[in-house]
Amino acid sequence: MTASDRTRVLVVGAGAIGSFYGAILHRAGAEVSVVCRSDYEVVREHGFRMTSPLGDLSFRPVAVYAGMEECTQPPDYLLLCVKVLDGVDRVGLIRPAVGPETAIVLVENGIGIEREVAEAFPGNTVISGLGMVGVSRVGPGRIRHNHYGRLVLGDYPSGAGERSRKLGALLDEGGAGGEVTATVVAARWRKCLWNTAFNPLSVLGGGADTGTMTGSESTETLLRALMAEVVEVAAADGHPMDAELIDQYLERTRTFPPYRNSMALDYLNGRPLELDAILGNVIRIAEENGVAVPRLDTVYRSIRMLQDMQASEDGGPEG
Amino acid sequence: MTASDRTRVLVVGAGAIGSFYGAILHRAGAEVSVVCRSDYEVVREHGFRMTSPLGDLSFRPVAVYAGMEECTQPPDYLLLCVKVLDGVDRVGLIRPAVGPETAIVLVENGIGIEREVAEAFPGNTVISGLGMVGVSRVGPGRIRHNHYGRLVLGDYPSGAGERSRKLGALLDEGGAGGEVTATVVAARWRKCLWNTAFNPLSVLGGGADTGTMTGSESTETLLRALMAEVVEVAAADGHPMDAELIDQYLERTRTFPPYRNSMALDYLNGRPLELDAILGNVIRIAEENGVAVPRLDTVYRSIRMLQDMQASEDGGPEG
Repeated sequence: MTASDRTRVLVVGAGAIGSFYGAILHRAGAEVSVVCRSDYEVVREHGFRMTSPLGDLSFRPVAVYAGMEECTQPPDYLLLCVKVLDGVDRVGLIRPAVGPETAIVLVENGIGIEREVAEAFPGNTVISGLGMVGVSRVGPGRIRHNHYGRLVLGDYPSGAGERSRKLGALLDEGGAGGEVTATVVAARWRKCLWNTAFNPLSVLGGGADTGTMTGSESTETLLRALMAEVVEVAAADGHPMDAELIDQYLERTRTFPPYRNSMALDYLNGRPLELDAILGNVIRIAEENGVAVPRLDTVYRSIRMLQDMQASEDGGPEG
Repeated sequence: MTASDRTRVLVVGAGAIGSFYGAILHRAGAEVSVVCRSDYEVVREHGFRMTSPLGDLSFRPVAVYAGMEECTQPPDYLLLCVKVLDGVDRVGLIRPAVGPETAIVLVENGIGIEREVAEAFPGNTVISGLGMVGVSRVGPGRIRHNHYGRLVLGDYPSGAGERSRKLGALLDEGGAGGEVTATVVAARWRKCLWNTAFNPLSVLGGGADTGTMTGSESTETLLRALMAEVVEVAAADGHPMDAELIDQYLERTRTFPPYRNSMALDYLNGRPLELDAILGNVIRIAEENGVAVPRLDTVYRSIRMLQDMQASEDGGPEG
């Protein structure tokens, strides 16, 4: 294999998840570059140090960029791994690096997050990806991969085209597992079913962990009711889910040791929340389909108020 | 007027509101005793010191009791001014002091709070009272009356009997204003309409003040939706309210300088919340009448979870 044959990957947003999949693709022989703002100096100097049950995943990217404007050579795959936040223009962010043949891979949380990207790049393949991975940043350029790793992926809005299959094969080779599906939006709804109920509610609970949430009959009733609303919205969006999934999720959550989900951690650490990606978009899709979601809407507006309140106090929950 | 003609009043729970109405009735010539746990020593020694736009309302109760078991002489009126909290047995609390002729006056927040008292004392007149008063405890036995003072009152469940009218006249004489109504439960629903929406939501907003709550379109929409559910429950309970009241409440709230309601203050100070009196009972009445209140229920369960969470952390929001 010559250098020119190697798949060129650009990871945009090399946080824990982005650098993990970068490492996996590097391991599979791809030529991986990263855009990495906060840890730029360290990563440029030393690459990523990464421990994992898979072995030492440390690697040195082919190129480390501090900003998108430096990315002049369009990659085969652009992995977008930034958070989906209000006021973050993801389309504008990646535009400099997207070439006509670039497949845009969204490794991000939430539902309905592909649409604006697909509309902005109608000629490009957009791949939607769901990282099923436990990974955390333990220091600048230092990542700990804890468990799992699978990336569920497929063409947006549907299909399992050549670009998705090739990426899946690379992820398999790299040891993480690439699970290609022709119905990735349905998979996203299934992940959303848990996230949309648990994540925002944990914020209203002051950063409640899963043990607190599933340990009370009152809260379990609320979780079930929120998930039932999500099931209705998904069905109206063309992605019916088996309502038994609700029981399964609660059951499975109870079998894990209590932990705080990503939104609870973001909240407790004063970081911005992916509230629209995970909850607001569900409400938007419900409105588009004439589905009433009073409980989801109540949670959404309550968190918005909490954020207003904290903004007016000029500090986070710990500020 | 001889001592034996004087109306005998016992105030149970001489916090700010209880001692204010005690002072007013003292001023009207009643013989006022108080049960006063936390400030017992000071009040016994010095009585209450109370500043007010009405003048100096300081007074010395005829008797100051540290506990109910000392109240051996049944009063004409027993003013119950304790908070309505889970696990506080109000019936058991007052039983030692209730005689066959004692009128029990509930000067407390919430809806549906009279029922258990009325059921426990079927032979007694139960008067339901809504204190429209701005008053605060500024130190042991020291109260500042800020504004208003009116007590809306009437027989529970309805009527404006002799005992209510006499109490109203005394309050008028004392300068606070006693507004006797034959439909006090309807009046309670109207007060509840504001409290049930604003109070619990302020807790989910981290102790949000009225300015933060009415200052955002998103939160205003939620407040309106919560109040619309309360209007539906009240109607099903036999107390239809004009839905225009919602507009009026929001309008009026905006004209006041921002302030924190009592539940927001209780929350921020780590004190127990009157959650069932103000919200839980509305949900219970909704269930009894087959009215769906998904938003109120979501707020209720969220606050319960927040309380579980704080209990498990062994500390309040500031702990």
